Amino acid sequence: MQKIRLGIVGYGNVGRGVEYAISQNDDLELVAIFTRRKPEEISTVNKSITIHKMEEISNYIHSIDTMILCGGSTRDLPEHAPHFATMFNCVDSFDNHSRIPEYFALVDESAKKSKKISIISTGWDPGLFSLLRVLGMACIPVGCDYTFWGTGVSQGHSEAIRRIGGVKYAIQYTIPNDNAVAEVRKCTNPTLNTSQRHIRKCFVVAEHNADLIFIEHAIKTMPHYFFDYDTRVHFISEKEFLSEHSKMPHGGIVFRTGTTGNENTNKQRMEFLLQLESNPEFTANVMVAYARAAYQLYLKGEIGARTVFDVPIGLLVPNPMEELMKMVL
Amino acid sequence: MQKIRLGIVGYGNVGRGVEYAISQNDDLELVAIFTRRKPEEISTVNKSITIHKMEEISNYIHSIDTMILCGGSTRDLPEHAPHFATMFNCVDSFDNHSRIPEYFALVDESAKKSKKISIISTGWDPGLFSLLRVLGMACIPVGCDYTFWGTGVSQGHSEAIRRIGGVKYAIQYTIPNDNAVAEVRKCTNPTLNTSQRHIRKCFVVAEHNADLIFIEHAIKTMPHYFFDYDTRVHFISEKEFLSEHSKMPHGGIVFRTGTTGNENTNKQRMEFLLQLESNPEFTANVMVAYARAAYQLYLKGEIGARTVFDVPIGLLVPNPMEELMKMVL
Repeated sequence: MQKIRLGIVGYGNVGRGVEYAISQNDDLELVAIFTRRKPEEISTVNKSITIHKMEEISNYIHSIDTMILCGGSTRDLPEHAPHFATMFNCVDSFDNHSRIPEYFALVDESAKKSKKISIISTGWDPGLFSLLRVLGMACIPVGCDYTFWGTGVSQGHSEAIRRIGGVKYAIQYTIPNDNAVAEVRKCTNPTLNTSQRHIRKCFVVAEHNADLIFIEHAIKTMPHYFFDYDTRVHFISEKEFLSEHSKMPHGGIVFRTGTTGNENTNKQRMEFLLQLESNPEFTANVMVAYARAAYQLYLKGEIGARTVFDVPIGLLVPNPMEELMKMVL
Repeated sequence: MQKIRLGIVGYGNVGRGVEYAISQNDDLELVAIFTRRKPEEISTVNKSITIHKMEEISNYIHSIDTMILCGGSTRDLPEHAPHFATMFNCVDSFDNHSRIPEYFALVDESAKKSKKISIISTGWDPGLFSLLRVLGMACIPVGCDYTFWGTGVSQGHSEAIRRIGGVKYAIQYTIPNDNAVAEVRKCTNPTLNTSQRHIRKCFVVAEHNADLIFIEHAIKTMPHYFFDYDTRVHFISEKEFLSEHSKMPHGGIVFRTGTTGNENTNKQRMEFLLQLESNPEFTANVMVAYARAAYQLYLKGEIGARTVFDVPIGLLVPNPMEELMKMVL
């Protein structure tokens, strides 16, 4: 069987996760990695993979079936995605929710010109969580949905703490509030805003002689980030910080709860939970599955931008539909 | 907006659930119900819906967009589905897993002749659980999957108990074994067969003067049904039976657990849980969502049989893709 030939643009945590992910799939092959950094400064997992400067990417138009764009949503992707869609089938994990429609339009225009496919905003949120929200709306039309995030690291909140004077290291975990989760599981469709749904747990290493009371107060009163939340601050040693808080876990739960039947008396609940020890590696795995699907859609003659809502689930795996029917239907 | 016009074949628990489900969706309309029974003996939820004999169905070829087949998998569907696929777009919930490939082939042949779409084996297992198994394989390729069923009524096991002498009423609930679920959640990928994953809880109303010890022994030693399981038998009064055990709850959990990254050290877990107070009503809701999708696929010019693996999730809801992109992506 001819393997599907993939490329990676951007070699940070997600890019490295994509390299691992491809190695877990026999039908996929990593052809090259493209970076804005100096290629000789990058150490890949598989030493035999060639790393190239971004400018060389157009030489690969005929040797890469889908390009996996691993840049950030703020600056990289708005530039990369419309550009590389003129050359390749692409997938990305663009996660700036409010800008998705305009981003989609730009990518769609490029992909239509090149007669290729680009699947935008894959990953798990947006991505799998979005899929499950739609599945919930479809199967429990009279109902509510709830998304809880965590337990997981929020980079934005961790950075906000690090900007406070006297803080040496800091990490913030977003954690679903157990009481709120329990309430949702009762199918009472409670009204719960984001701050009622989550706890913010902060681990802080203070500078020598720093004012701990000041730091804790500065965190807990920080508007938008912490003020409205059940915020818990723990001061720990540098040693504990480095040994216990170096992973990038994340996850969350998407609920749909509602009722069916005569006078809507029967409660129905759908729940989708992710618990991830490595957020970037799981995101990478989802992207790789959609990279496979993008190439399948391209082979069927489809062109333009797509979202996870457009992609049949069976195209995410290498197995033919007949085999899936026997094996897992 | 023109509503999608639906019909129901077979008016048992699921057929009635479909009638409720259609009433929860503004873009859908129930045109007629077809039955093998005498129409005048059937009392529908909405009294103004017309009920017809099965023979009249061909008069509706031009006035029903998708027919929802609510017959049983043993006798009804193998006959109904290939037949009605020659006239209508259809959905069904065929759940005889081992016979799905041959069933698919028959329906496919009919649907290709009529240039219509038939989506087979919708519902939640097969159906949503199958989708989630594939999503798990796609996103955690190095891993295991586990399906737990329940808490829910097993009709087959309930009937098996009722065949024992001295039993007046009986109902059997399949319940996930908490210890097994906890083990799976640890991502240790344990080996667990069906009997280790489930408890079988039986509520029995005995005839007056029946030998309770004999009944309990007969249940617990019944091969295939109960012998290998943690089986628990509770004798209750007829009054309690009728008041507490008249609903048809069900549900279950599909897990995918595995590892990613360097030397597969990072554990990743996906979990999809259903808790349903009415199994037939939820099954009906899923079928109705796929009935909508079947018509959309037909409008795109697709023909033949399909499974849930072929259907983009976005087609299950009435919202246009642009709206979904803004609202839930």
